Amino acid sequence: MKRHLLLISNSTQPGRPYLEHCLDEMASFLADARSVLFVPYAMQNVDAYADAARNGLRDLGVQVSSIHRAEDPLGAVRDAEAIFIGGGNTFRLLDRLARSGLLGALRSFARAGGRYMGTSAGSNMAGPTIKTTNDMPIIYPPTFDALDIVSFNINPHYADRDPDVPHDGETRSQRIAEFHEIDSHAVIGLREQTMLLVDGTSIQLRGSHAGAKVFRQGQPPTEHHAGEFLDHVLEPHTTLQASTNGAKDDRE
Amino acid sequence: MKRHLLLISNSTQPGRPYLEHCLDEMASFLADARSVLFVPYAMQNVDAYADAARNGLRDLGVQVSSIHRAEDPLGAVRDAEAIFIGGGNTFRLLDRLARSGLLGALRSFARAGGRYMGTSAGSNMAGPTIKTTNDMPIIYPPTFDALDIVSFNINPHYADRDPDVPHDGETRSQRIAEFHEIDSHAVIGLREQTMLLVDGTSIQLRGSHAGAKVFRQGQPPTEHHAGEFLDHVLEPHTTLQASTNGAKDDRE
Repeated sequence: MKRHLLLISNSTQPGRPYLEHCLDEMASFLADARSVLFVPYAMQNVDAYADAARNGLRDLGVQVSSIHRAEDPLGAVRDAEAIFIGGGNTFRLLDRLARSGLLGALRSFARAGGRYMGTSAGSNMAGPTIKTTNDMPIIYPPTFDALDIVSFNINPHYADRDPDVPHDGETRSQRIAEFHEIDSHAVIGLREQTMLLVDGTSIQLRGSHAGAKVFRQGQPPTEHHAGEFLDHVLEPHTTLQASTNGAKDDRE
Repeated sequence: MKRHLLLISNSTQPGRPYLEHCLDEMASFLADARSVLFVPYAMQNVDAYADAARNGLRDLGVQVSSIHRAEDPLGAVRDAEAIFIGGGNTFRLLDRLARSGLLGALRSFARAGGRYMGTSAGSNMAGPTIKTTNDMPIIYPPTFDALDIVSFNINPHYADRDPDVPHDGETRSQRIAEFHEIDSHAVIGLREQTMLLVDGTSIQLRGSHAGAKVFRQGQPPTEHHAGEFLDHVLEPHTTLQASTNGAKDDRE
């Protein structure tokens, strides 16, 4: 399976410039790519967002173009060296991708091994559906089905309940438990400054020591730390299939 | 305009039994009604939820039946003395109401002046859409359109950001600002233990001193306290129309 994905929880960390906390990971992920196609559709003001992305990535020495300025957006996806989908509102992002045909183009791009980076809503989009987003449903999209380039759901900005904070509705883990009442996909709750690096069937948790929590239907949640490989936890069927096919896991 | 609505932020307050914090308001609202029809569809386990509602309302001396046990659910709504829609997941609730035809039956009931109580998802449902829910979109419903028996949106469990709590995604007011980028309906953020009592065109904020925050497109948010009447804030067109028609506001 060809896949090159960098799925990041958050783009902005309080007190630090946009993207700063993950810039080294992005640089390493982009390797020798000279250009990045930015997808700004999770935000309302796409011009301002594209400028922010260009500014945030300027130290990487890559050329950043925004898809909303492309004459042929589907062709721009097909020909991209790398794609970066920024965060914002997941419903708005999915609505625009699904109505424009970009959803299918992005799926083909990522499944063929194209380099795909996402933050927040852009990471949510990599899963089978957007059903574990935290965002407000400000637009009714034509579907909740997303790119399905990883076979588990992502919950960005995962936060444990602080017991000292007054009740303000369900906790995040209660919401994910509600999801598992009717959906069997595994969910990874990525805490701030954490990310998944996906390379073929390999899935590594990276970033902050805060780590991530994995929720599987009918099982107690499990805690994971930066550096851990999570393929057997998040995609057991895929890794089983790979080893059955005789694929070599080059970490072992 | 005939309307009798009690729209409550939360049903459970930590350390107190289910519904206890709003039971006096419910008793007063139900007046001489002898029976309440309960709608448990925001939760997965409807039997357990119906039992909890019957138990929670037992001191009110009303007979509580659950719509999921009715042979003719649409007829049960039509003939109800009062209806109570419990909280849970707003997407699941709307999905079940829309697919069963209950959405239209409940709208007719409430618009004809039937007594309608809701908590959390059940309060969300009273607005034009569910686009300001906090819930996770665990099911794709056939629509985001809700009952539209009040002409503003509700955000239950409204909480202000505690500046000492680490970043975990957008604040609630940022999410509502995203909604107002594309939708002009006013939004009321109901803090825990607060509620709206709607009687015809009159809309009163009741419950805890924590109060509520109103967000209007293009305007700074405003704070409101228990006891305030909010008709002119939340439904200015309706109240304008009522006064133009010579309707007397019996509070003045």
